[in-house]
Amino acid sequence: MRLAAFQQPGAATGRRAGLVVGEGPNWWVHPFPEGTDLIELLAADRDDREAAADTAARGDGLRPDQIRLLPPVYPVAMRDFLTFEQHVAGVGKGMQGHEFVPDEWYAAPSFLFMAPHAVTGGYDDVAIAPDTERFDYELELAAIVCRDVHNATTEQARAAIGGYCVMNDWSARDVQGREMKLGLGPSKGKDFATTIGPWVVTADELDDRRDADGFLDLRMTVKVNGEITGGDRSGHMGWTFEQMISYASRASWVKKGEVIASGTCGGGALAEAWGRTGELNPPPLRVGDVVEMTIERLGTIRNRIVARDDVVPPIVPARRLTRLEV
Amino acid sequence: MRLAAFQQPGAATGRRAGLVVGEGPNWWVHPFPEGTDLIELLAADRDDREAAADTAARGDGLRPDQIRLLPPVYPVAMRDFLTFEQHVAGVGKGMQGHEFVPDEWYAAPSFLFMAPHAVTGGYDDVAIAPDTERFDYELELAAIVCRDVHNATTEQARAAIGGYCVMNDWSARDVQGREMKLGLGPSKGKDFATTIGPWVVTADELDDRRDADGFLDLRMTVKVNGEITGGDRSGHMGWTFEQMISYASRASWVKKGEVIASGTCGGGALAEAWGRTGELNPPPLRVGDVVEMTIERLGTIRNRIVARDDVVPPIVPARRLTRLEV
Repeated sequence: MRLAAFQQPGAATGRRAGLVVGEGPNWWVHPFPEGTDLIELLAADRDDREAAADTAARGDGLRPDQIRLLPPVYPVAMRDFLTFEQHVAGVGKGMQGHEFVPDEWYAAPSFLFMAPHAVTGGYDDVAIAPDTERFDYELELAAIVCRDVHNATTEQARAAIGGYCVMNDWSARDVQGREMKLGLGPSKGKDFATTIGPWVVTADELDDRRDADGFLDLRMTVKVNGEITGGDRSGHMGWTFEQMISYASRASWVKKGEVIASGTCGGGALAEAWGRTGELNPPPLRVGDVVEMTIERLGTIRNRIVARDDVVPPIVPARRLTRLEV
Repeated sequence: MRLAAFQQPGAATGRRAGLVVGEGPNWWVHPFPEGTDLIELLAADRDDREAAADTAARGDGLRPDQIRLLPPVYPVAMRDFLTFEQHVAGVGKGMQGHEFVPDEWYAAPSFLFMAPHAVTGGYDDVAIAPDTERFDYELELAAIVCRDVHNATTEQARAAIGGYCVMNDWSARDVQGREMKLGLGPSKGKDFATTIGPWVVTADELDDRRDADGFLDLRMTVKVNGEITGGDRSGHMGWTFEQMISYASRASWVKKGEVIASGTCGGGALAEAWGRTGELNPPPLRVGDVVEMTIERLGTIRNRIVARDDVVPPIVPARRLTRLEV
């Protein structure tokens, strides 16, 4: 089942949840009753969700041109993992000068917390980040969490995953490179926009695409202006989403409404080519470019990069230390 | 004005907001009416907040032994900055082998997103992190955000700060050291507990402690088992909270209910001494230790470290890459 969040421009109602039907460009959305929460639908028993969908499907559908897709969730937190070995090796060469995967990568599924406020819908325009001449995309697979877990086994983690969607973790590589020298990871290099969508495909729909170790194996592709620029398979992840959530929940919490992202797949960022070749080829993204990401079974997100129309405040350097009496 | 969140063990009501009165150990809490939101009180006009406090103060007060202090906010996000030059230099020596502050530090107030789900109250016991033999504290000053801002000037940022509190960003240095080798910053090294409290002191109460550049200058002290182990002054920060929030909001959002933390002050972590001397002296924190942090005007948080009583799931290493057809 595919569940979308959307709004109808001009309608009195705000954010709504809907059932997506149809295939390819011929899809439409049947709204659930007002007040229906997408995360609650994901957490519901399968029979209850099916019954709600059957009821919704009997109502009128809305065509793509009648709605704007919204991010399926405004996350209570976002964890971005680093699970694709090929990406670690390629970007490592650009950032550190040599292509290698540290032993620490193999030991545990590392992640960082991302800006949770910057999510945008699957077809929304994205304003280019300020201060960057190396604007880039990151093709990722994301899971939507529908139950709180703490010290979860992989079985408990599996029950906490409501579904999956496509994610583009837009990145300003020059900004990110500067701030990563301080050891804290990226922040302003990525906190302006993260596209998730186009909708959530419930986890039960994908069981037939798990391999013998339980890894979801879906083809992932990215195009810029219609040309394929990269791609991979999610079966190349070093850990399953269940293992990632179990790890994240160790002595901690993963909560309903969180987004758990795979990290960039192999070939899923221009920076990987820049790192390997030392040249900006393909060139950084520019205003007017259209980035399109497709994950098999999950759908396509497509975003045009537009100029910023806002005024960002100036960056102030540090006041240098003058010793005060402690 | 001091505003606390608390619960009364055994009472039918849950989380409540209260007005703190009294001094030193002789303090008590006058509850606001049920349903009063602490962040809304911070965002209210000063006159309205004073009127609400006057009404609350006419009711009965609760003594410390009648309540449990809760974190003043369950954050919608937490940003932890790195604003104390001395801490950067000291920890840098331990992590990278040499004491220096990179140029990038001076250029902009860098930060990371922290685990938002792990906040604990000002006097709560803290379970030691799993897998660590280098358990440590971090003494920080934190601001509570009461208004959403986007591309904020420092003046707009100032209006978005509701108040301040003390923060202990508990850290497992060995875990953190391993994961920071991957460039993403710390995550499992810090996601098990963050103490904030004991309450929020409204920003207007601290105007007399700003220096000529607008920096809050408050004495900060940490003790382990009653002995002073470190301290600094918040006037040693490289940026004001207004500058930090303005920077964080550039092309992004800082939202009501966020916690914005200063980063560790100079001498505010055992790791700083470990980095400078190469020896684990003072020793890492152990079960039974009591860590007490005081910031002038804001109060004291005091936490006993206890053994874990939960079972954490195993850590699974990566499945090595076997090339699949893309």
